[in-house]
Amino acid sequence: MRLQLILTAVLVTTLAAAQTQPPKPGYMREAPPSADGAYSPQLRSELTALRDAALTDDYAYQQVAHLTENIGPRPEGSPQALFAVHYVADELRKLGLDVRLEEVQVPRWTRGVETAELVEYPGQAPGTTQKIVLTALGGNTPTAAEGLTAEVVVVNNFDELKALGQSKVAGKIVLFNVAFDRKKADAGRAFDGYSEAVAYRAGGAKAAAELGAAGSLVRSVGTADYRMPHTGYSSNAGIPQGAVTSEDADLIAHLAAQGKVRLHFVLTSQTGAPVLCYNVVGDLKGSEHPEQIVVVSGHLDSWDLGRGAIDDGAGVVVAMETAQLIQQLHLHPKRTIRVIAWMDEENGGSGQNAYAKEHETEFSNHVAAIESDSGAGHPLGFEVMSSSKALPFLRPVQEILESFGASIIQTTDSSPEADITPLAKAGVPALGLLQDGRTYFFYHHTAADTLDKIVPQELRENAAAMAVMGYALANLPEPLPR
Amino acid sequence: MRLQLILTAVLVTTLAAAQTQPPKPGYMREAPPSADGAYSPQLRSELTALRDAALTDDYAYQQVAHLTENIGPRPEGSPQALFAVHYVADELRKLGLDVRLEEVQVPRWTRGVETAELVEYPGQAPGTTQKIVLTALGGNTPTAAEGLTAEVVVVNNFDELKALGQSKVAGKIVLFNVAFDRKKADAGRAFDGYSEAVAYRAGGAKAAAELGAAGSLVRSVGTADYRMPHTGYSSNAGIPQGAVTSEDADLIAHLAAQGKVRLHFVLTSQTGAPVLCYNVVGDLKGSEHPEQIVVVSGHLDSWDLGRGAIDDGAGVVVAMETAQLIQQLHLHPKRTIRVIAWMDEENGGSGQNAYAKEHETEFSNHVAAIESDSGAGHPLGFEVMSSSKALPFLRPVQEILESFGASIIQTTDSSPEADITPLAKAGVPALGLLQDGRTYFFYHHTAADTLDKIVPQELRENAAAMAVMGYALANLPEPLPR
Repeated sequence: MRLQLILTAVLVTTLAAAQTQPPKPGYMREAPPSADGAYSPQLRSELTALRDAALTDDYAYQQVAHLTENIGPRPEGSPQALFAVHYVADELRKLGLDVRLEEVQVPRWTRGVETAELVEYPGQAPGTTQKIVLTALGGNTPTAAEGLTAEVVVVNNFDELKALGQSKVAGKIVLFNVAFDRKKADAGRAFDGYSEAVAYRAGGAKAAAELGAAGSLVRSVGTADYRMPHTGYSSNAGIPQGAVTSEDADLIAHLAAQGKVRLHFVLTSQTGAPVLCYNVVGDLKGSEHPEQIVVVSGHLDSWDLGRGAIDDGAGVVVAMETAQLIQQLHLHPKRTIRVIAWMDEENGGSGQNAYAKEHETEFSNHVAAIESDSGAGHPLGFEVMSSSKALPFLRPVQEILESFGASIIQTTDSSPEADITPLAKAGVPALGLLQDGRTYFFYHHTAADTLDKIVPQELRENAAAMAVMGYALANLPEPLPR
Repeated sequence: MRLQLILTAVLVTTLAAAQTQPPKPGYMREAPPSADGAYSPQLRSELTALRDAALTDDYAYQQVAHLTENIGPRPEGSPQALFAVHYVADELRKLGLDVRLEEVQVPRWTRGVETAELVEYPGQAPGTTQKIVLTALGGNTPTAAEGLTAEVVVVNNFDELKALGQSKVAGKIVLFNVAFDRKKADAGRAFDGYSEAVAYRAGGAKAAAELGAAGSLVRSVGTADYRMPHTGYSSNAGIPQGAVTSEDADLIAHLAAQGKVRLHFVLTSQTGAPVLCYNVVGDLKGSEHPEQIVVVSGHLDSWDLGRGAIDDGAGVVVAMETAQLIQQLHLHPKRTIRVIAWMDEENGGSGQNAYAKEHETEFSNHVAAIESDSGAGHPLGFEVMSSSKALPFLRPVQEILESFGASIIQTTDSSPEADITPLAKAGVPALGLLQDGRTYFFYHHTAADTLDKIVPQELRENAAAMAVMGYALANLPEPLPR
């Protein structure tokens, strides 16, 4: 999930709240005909069957096992990403979908060497250095092969950096030692905590470079302390930039408070010429309105450090399972269910841009777009960016998902997930699966984003939520009101 | 804490149990004069004062911060270890102790390159490999600089290896995929779980080599999944041997179940000629029986991956604080309190052997030996290897430590900690601090063994337990009965 998409939840509407609180008057005036009536007994029965099948199905797990373990990390532009594109396309064809590979020119960024050590600090044992664990960020400007050595200045926010000014920053390495507020993650507001901390990953280097800094480091944006650096996208600031582990940020901050600290680091990432890759687009044609489209999706690319399990193999496979379950139950969506495995969510969003360019003229026929890109934890429901007129039509889905606790509808005023941003901006009702995110940032963008972090039953619940929502939106008598 | 010292607890005697259960008849016949009477009101008052001072003191934390952050990792034979020796010696001199550096010839083992990748596996994207995170074990026989490539065979125990036999093992890399039983750790029996799993780290390579294996890998012996390899001592088997992370062990096992898996790895550790290092031995002379000695200790060396905070900077500093508190409160132990910062607990035990050689003739005057080497978690009490006749004399200490929940006395029939093994074997009552170990193996022997893993108040509690026990044993009218 990319930083630009931090959600500002403006309203939380649970099923219970919807049932017990009177609707606002203005809302009532605009209310469409009874949404309950839009769900025929047959549709309700089909949705219940989809839910129940999903909750005992292993298709999604088997697929994510293959993506993460047989194929492995899938950074945009890599051979693995391209191989995964063909794999997913083939699997969707096996399900009977009409599959196209839609061209995307993606960046080819490779990590290179990443090492660091403190070379001068108070109390240092003569002739020794201390290893610092770091990783390059996506916007990194490489160091020379021999690396960069400079004094470190530690700041706790942008104001402190500004107060230091050019005289104390120029030629130095700035460390933004800003910790993720874990209480927010514990309290179910993980993305609020992420939003605050990731501002330094995204914009720290630029602010440091403006004061003449030689390099920029950020405390890893995560919520567990296992000497794991968290990579991620950052704006290219023309200086080397990396993320150090929480433990190494602490070390540098403690030593710098005692005296002079000098760091040597090497980050030789390379950005090659853009290469051709693809969004995988698979259509399960609608029986009545094949031109009307409901997108179910996740992104196929991943960061290179881990294996892209929770970010976002899980999203791709629950979208695949939506099609698989519909076929398995011999259901016939009235509108087209379009499975999309997006390319390059992580390092620039070229996949969503290519899709927008190719399909912009058809956006009025996109009835809704769903993406899952916030992990594989227990789904709580959905985040929705839509007209308030659409919400009553989601209530019967909430009722069906209530059995396993996925009934929340939380509205938002920005796209709930990255890849569906162009659709959301064009007014297409946009839905993001809302997962329990309490552990998501333990692993997010680290080497530990591996298959074992997915709990099979929770993945089944995510598949159930996406399948039920996707199929419902494809089968309402009228498209969701905008 | 070293594998040889896994404890077989034969009896748990809590304070409550001691008070409510009738002593065994045989035990009574041999019972010494009332132990309560051995504690004068003055001694009880001094012990209470030590406890209370420890529970509000920051000396140990400041010392472990310096050892771990200013000096850093302290592998035996490294410049940092030697520097730490002099640092601790100086600090003990500042406390007024009579300090000697006692020579130890220690191995000089350096880690070198450690990289690995799967080069062949089912479903592989053409032209790609998958990174495997591993670390060398202490007994490693290095690969050639270009590394070793071979097929991997995965076994879940020694019997499976044996069943495979030479024909299926020769020339291969054996992976012992044996998981730490986390339920034991959760249930307060972390060292039982460790004992079971570490048998493969310690002896796996030897068993594999006997069947002609080219290399040996073990699933990291730990209880958290953050792509962290856990290093440690292992017997030198004449073949390269490493520990892979739990995630990488899973990956290899899953892929090997599907077809052929080949791994390339490089482990270029080097074992140089032994170098001179030291045990730090600091005496706070006894006022009445200076020749009688109570040892309080921890080990100063650490593995190189982390910074040696919980293993075992914490042990050294609580021993140092025992002396510091006695001096701060102007107390005068009747027997000598000997603070020892042991060298080379981790990779051969040369420090304990050197001490035994130097002091064996004085062991009859060693009244007791205490070590802390099971982390810095909340202390539950002590593990004790002694004559049962000694136990009544520990009860008043249990009462004093009960206020913060450190009153358990758990007996054992092997030395409770590594460095005091020669003393324990010679009949010296040997005590190990018994900590809450539920999180110890999250970090043990990994890069994440860093200062932040120590909770200051828990460290104070450990200092209180060691100071109270050490001072009590130094001030009983008679030495602990053997």
